[in-house]
Order: sequence, then C-alpha cells, then structure tokens
Amino acid sequence: MTPQDLMRLVRDVPDFPKPGIVFKDIMPLLSNADALRETVDLLADWAAPREPDLILGAEARGFITGGALACKLGCGFVAARKPGKLPWRTVSAKYALEYGYDVLELHADAISAGQRVIVHDDVLATGGTARAKCELVEQLGGEVAGVAFIISLEFLEGRKRLEGYDVYSLVQY
Amino acid sequence: MTPQDLMRLVRDVPDFPKPGIVFKDIMPLLSNADALRETVDLLADWAAPREPDLILGAEARGFITGGALACKLGCGFVAARKPGKLPWRTVSAKYALEYGYDVLELHADAISAGQRVIVHDDVLATGGTARAKCELVEQLGGEVAGVAFIISLEFLEGRKRLEGYDVYSLVQY
Repeated sequence: MTPQDLMRLVRDVPDFPKPGIVFKDIMPLLSNADALRETVDLLADWAAPREPDLILGAEARGFITGGALACKLGCGFVAARKPGKLPWRTVSAKYALEYGYDVLELHADAISAGQRVIVHDDVLATGGTARAKCELVEQLGGEVAGVAFIISLEFLEGRKRLEGYDVYSLVQY
Repeated sequence: MTPQDLMRLVRDVPDFPKPGIVFKDIMPLLSNADALRETVDLLADWAAPREPDLILGAEARGFITGGALACKLGCGFVAARKPGKLPWRTVSAKYALEYGYDVLELHADAISAGQRVIVHDDVLATGGTARAKCELVEQLGGEVAGVAFIISLEFLEGRKRLEGYDVYSLVQY
C-alpha cells in the first residue's frame, strides 16, 4: 500500500464538528488491517532512525496509532490528555483556540531528563496542540526527536507553528 | 516479565476520580517499553487463537493497547466512543451508571456481518461498558470472539455482567 492508497481510505465528513468544516475521518483506514499495519510501518520507518525512547500520543485518536507505534519501535508510550483525565501529578501547557484557549496535561514523571520523544497525532491542523505537546516534553527535560502525523492539512500552515522541529506526515492535503 | 512484574508498574492513586475510589493508573506500565511490549504480547497470545478480524477499543485508554494489539495481530481497529465524537453515522448502546446511564457509539459501517471482534479495554470494573461494547458488535452482525482486559477488579464482579462471553485479564485484583 502506498500513501495514496491510504489516502483513499480517509473519509471526508462535511460539516463536522461544525458547519463549514470537512472532517478527515481516519476510522475506515484504521479498521482496514493492511492499511493500519502499513500506516504504523511507515511512521516507524521515519521514527526509528531518530532513536526515540518514548512516543507521546494525544487524546484520543493519537492513542490508537501511538500505542501501536510505541510497540513496533520498542518504546514506551506517554499520554497527553485533557485537564482532569490524568490521575496523578501533572504538568500542563496551554494552546490557543479560535476564541480563548485550552490545556493539555502530562504526568510529571512521564518523561525523564534526556529521553528522546516522538510527538504523534493523527492530524496536523493549525499545529497548536502539537506545539503544546512539544512544550510538555521540554518542560520535563525531554528532547523532541520528531513530530509525526498520519495526515497534514497543509492549507492550515501548521508546520509554521512547529518551526525548529523535525515534522513528518504520511499524507498531505 | 511476568504478570506480577506488570502489576508492580500499576500505580494506586487514592481518591480519584472521587473520594473513596482507588484508581489503578496504568500509565507507568505503558511508559515502560518492556512492560508495554509484554502486555501487548500476552494479550495477543490469548487473542490470536480466537482468530479475530478486528479489535474494538474503548475511549480513551483502551485505544492505546487496542491499537497496538490490532497491529500485532494483523487486525483492523474499531473505536467505541462517547456520543458526538464519531463523525459519521453511528449505532449506540446504553449502559448503567451509579445514577442514570451513559451511551457508547460505534460507526455503523465499523463491523461487517460475521466479522470476529475482540472487545478490549484497560480495566474491567463493573462490566457495564464492556457489555455495551459487546452489544454494539452484535448490533452490526459481528461476533464477539472474546473480551480482553489488562486489569480486572474482581471484587466488582464485572464477569457476571459478561456471562456467556470469553473473558480474559492479565492481572487480577
């Protein structure tokens, strides 16, 4: 399977989560065994030479391929979650929304100083949450070894928010 | 690593999410590369002879090991989510809470008739959400090939709610 084959398994859902937005639904890709395996293999091919210790996945879709990627690479997995979801002590980072801001949290012991972390999510949109995840890694003394997505929506220019980081996506729109 | 080694990596967090509850935090287990791999390997050893086509993971922690398990077994992954999170047409199942009820959704095309599905989550507590997930599989004509957890809290008697299903957990409390 090529990235183009994978792209054909991403479903456009108009007007979700609100009118005017076309949502990229990766569920048909994930439920296809060959496509799921190929997606994780391609992410792993990119990530392996960056020698990560950990994969940081974001709630919630980033957990699915993030967990698989960690296993494939022989890394641990750490979860960035919305406030109040992680039970133990946390560090947090803010990111801007259209109006106002939101927060992501990480357990304070999730990353040790010097550990190399691949930040992963399913979709790169404006880059705001990915930037917050990189900040969480660095707050704990970790090093961002790369930022890997399945899909990037290039017209939203998320890469600009991630300048200075090594950014990869399998499929670009 | 034995299941007992894995158990030592599960952290007890008292009074989360509310006073009087001791939360089993699997994050230290997931962030340990050897423990994550062993967890997924043990789940896969149990699941493989049941010949699943799909792994159904529940939002959100069930996505992490669910995605890894699907990849390991060469299965697809389908996501059971809270209402309003899945963008396309859905089927739904109710489950009881202490007071009232909640709902889980699955995309209406997530499972084809006759597909064999392993229902997966991190923790078996009262069994209510796991039961709802089994119902979702069956609504779409799928067959529950087994129900696999990392942890089961046996004192909550969740297995009773799952009578008639093939239930497995790595670690029992």
